[in-house]
Amino acid sequence: MRPPASVGQKLEEVDTPALVLDLDAFDRNILTLKKTIEGKGVRVRAHAKTHKCPEIAKHQLAAGAIGVCCQKVSEAEAMVAGGIEDVLVSNEVVGAAKVERLAELSRRGRIGVCVDDPGNALELEKTGAKLDVYVEIDVGMGRCGVPPGAPAVALAKQIANSNTLRFAGLQAYHGRAQHFRSMEERRAAIADASQKVSSTKSELQKAGIECPVVTGAGSGTFMLEVQSGAWNEIQPGSYVFMDVDYGRNEWAAPLPRFEHSLFVLSTVMSRPSARLAILDAGLKASSVDSGMPTVWQRPGLHYAKASDEHGMVEIAEAGAAPRLGEKLLLVPGHCDPTVNLYDWYVCTRRGVVEALWPITARGAVY
Amino acid sequence: MRPPASVGQKLEEVDTPALVLDLDAFDRNILTLKKTIEGKGVRVRAHAKTHKCPEIAKHQLAAGAIGVCCQKVSEAEAMVAGGIEDVLVSNEVVGAAKVERLAELSRRGRIGVCVDDPGNALELEKTGAKLDVYVEIDVGMGRCGVPPGAPAVALAKQIANSNTLRFAGLQAYHGRAQHFRSMEERRAAIADASQKVSSTKSELQKAGIECPVVTGAGSGTFMLEVQSGAWNEIQPGSYVFMDVDYGRNEWAAPLPRFEHSLFVLSTVMSRPSARLAILDAGLKASSVDSGMPTVWQRPGLHYAKASDEHGMVEIAEAGAAPRLGEKLLLVPGHCDPTVNLYDWYVCTRRGVVEALWPITARGAVY
Repeated sequence: MRPPASVGQKLEEVDTPALVLDLDAFDRNILTLKKTIEGKGVRVRAHAKTHKCPEIAKHQLAAGAIGVCCQKVSEAEAMVAGGIEDVLVSNEVVGAAKVERLAELSRRGRIGVCVDDPGNALELEKTGAKLDVYVEIDVGMGRCGVPPGAPAVALAKQIANSNTLRFAGLQAYHGRAQHFRSMEERRAAIADASQKVSSTKSELQKAGIECPVVTGAGSGTFMLEVQSGAWNEIQPGSYVFMDVDYGRNEWAAPLPRFEHSLFVLSTVMSRPSARLAILDAGLKASSVDSGMPTVWQRPGLHYAKASDEHGMVEIAEAGAAPRLGEKLLLVPGHCDPTVNLYDWYVCTRRGVVEALWPITARGAVY
Repeated sequence: MRPPASVGQKLEEVDTPALVLDLDAFDRNILTLKKTIEGKGVRVRAHAKTHKCPEIAKHQLAAGAIGVCCQKVSEAEAMVAGGIEDVLVSNEVVGAAKVERLAELSRRGRIGVCVDDPGNALELEKTGAKLDVYVEIDVGMGRCGVPPGAPAVALAKQIANSNTLRFAGLQAYHGRAQHFRSMEERRAAIADASQKVSSTKSELQKAGIECPVVTGAGSGTFMLEVQSGAWNEIQPGSYVFMDVDYGRNEWAAPLPRFEHSLFVLSTVMSRPSARLAILDAGLKASSVDSGMPTVWQRPGLHYAKASDEHGMVEIAEAGAAPRLGEKLLLVPGHCDPTVNLYDWYVCTRRGVVEALWPITARGAVY
């Protein structure tokens, strides 16, 4: 797909729907993270599943990130192809074809991967690839991972005894906690996760297994993990963009407030009645899995419903009504799957297109 | 993105997640539609927003379809580039850049478009392009379209009086009705829509405006429109694939039953407990806007929850449990936005990959 804009165009000339990145807000988000963790003794491994774009990863590295994480081998391949040399697949990689591709990739960069099964660890070992292997422990998410404590130690021992694999540490990520609305709920979840990490670390120590890295922590909680002292690497992703869902969280110290930098530009394509505007951006333009997008800085306009290619916007009062053909910015409900619908970021600064960045890992699900 | 499979591979060797098309079921769906409308005096203009693939459009044309519809200009561009010469953009096209691209496209094929605004019709006319223009009337959907009757006649008159535009008829599509669960609800909705179409047609006749085509009607209702006699062109799309949402409808005469032909192949990537399997296919692999996917022909397995790249499958009893690394087929909750996540159909017949069809209009939102 060709880009819907060209450099130098004004925002209002960009064809729609388009995925728009406000570079000033984006730059500030990158800087806010850098300042927030300065001197805290943790390193940033930014999550690339959010942006799927080596160009953005390079901005994160320039601000001090030591590498990125990905969720899929194909996503990691796109990052390495784009010049990012330190990639953790923060996920299990299961299946002969995938394991082979991961092994191949480890010849082109420093590649890490997570395991939660002894058989899978053996499969990785058989490739002979030099991989950083992290044992994933379930710290409350109830998804992948072995239980903390003894099962994690047993798996770590197996990896540490391997001739090729390197036991790199623990993956301890509480994804659900990122979206708990109150700070209190998030504090409680991460306090509990932190105990699970600490007890596993001390059992590893007792078993004589060094645990260099504990990695995890997303945009909604990362400073809670940092303050616990149990993690020394964090994996925030959404902080570069934010979205409606994250915007609904309570934000208070020690967490900084990030800004909305990611938008979907849309056009009013029909005005069937005084109280209704139809946009050309529906659920193929903004993922609705975490709720509807919102209309940016246009009070009185409520994006009520999405169909495949239409958005229904209710108009609260006549004065708020947009005209036919008017372009509106939407804040996506959920940034990650929305980005995955597009091939290009239309990067703007003060209303002018400054760059077009290809989303080279778009569709990289395998 | 390169395809996750190669021709000749067995289904179980295909990398995951992959979008799989069962060609036997697909062929039967195409044939079922053909047989169902044979001799009924309507023509099929298949909806390409479902499949976004010229190869599939060609199968529909081979079974008698006279062309396709698309929702976006970029989708229509992909169809024309793929050799489909008769395309209706069954939607309003608003904005200078889009109108220009539509006009340009009309030099390469027979192109239709819908209008619901006099100013927009004027904008189309100014391009000088030879376009088939349909007046969209709102037959109960409450989205785009002018009200039936006088407003539709006024707009038709404006188009009929144009030197370049051709008034081609009415677009009368009730999208919501496709998903009303009971036949009774759907019958009532289409009976009402049919009255709106008929009264508008008779007012057009009184005004001396010929109305060659009334087009509309999706997979969930099309035979109700056909039996009403008010439509002479239908626009079914989902019938080629079906999905979980359509599967929840009541299906009874005069509507035929179509089969599930579209699947997402996934791998069990973690087995954290006796009653839980984690799949590598989450909401970036199967759109959840209309609900979760279901596990195909595996009783006792319930896909309960999707995160970005994970699917949580509950195991009802020990006997149903899949092993780590096992591949499972999922039926997507909603076929159209799921297809839009992929670059390739992995086309299989009796468990062997027979073809790879590129989804050339994937991401064609503008």
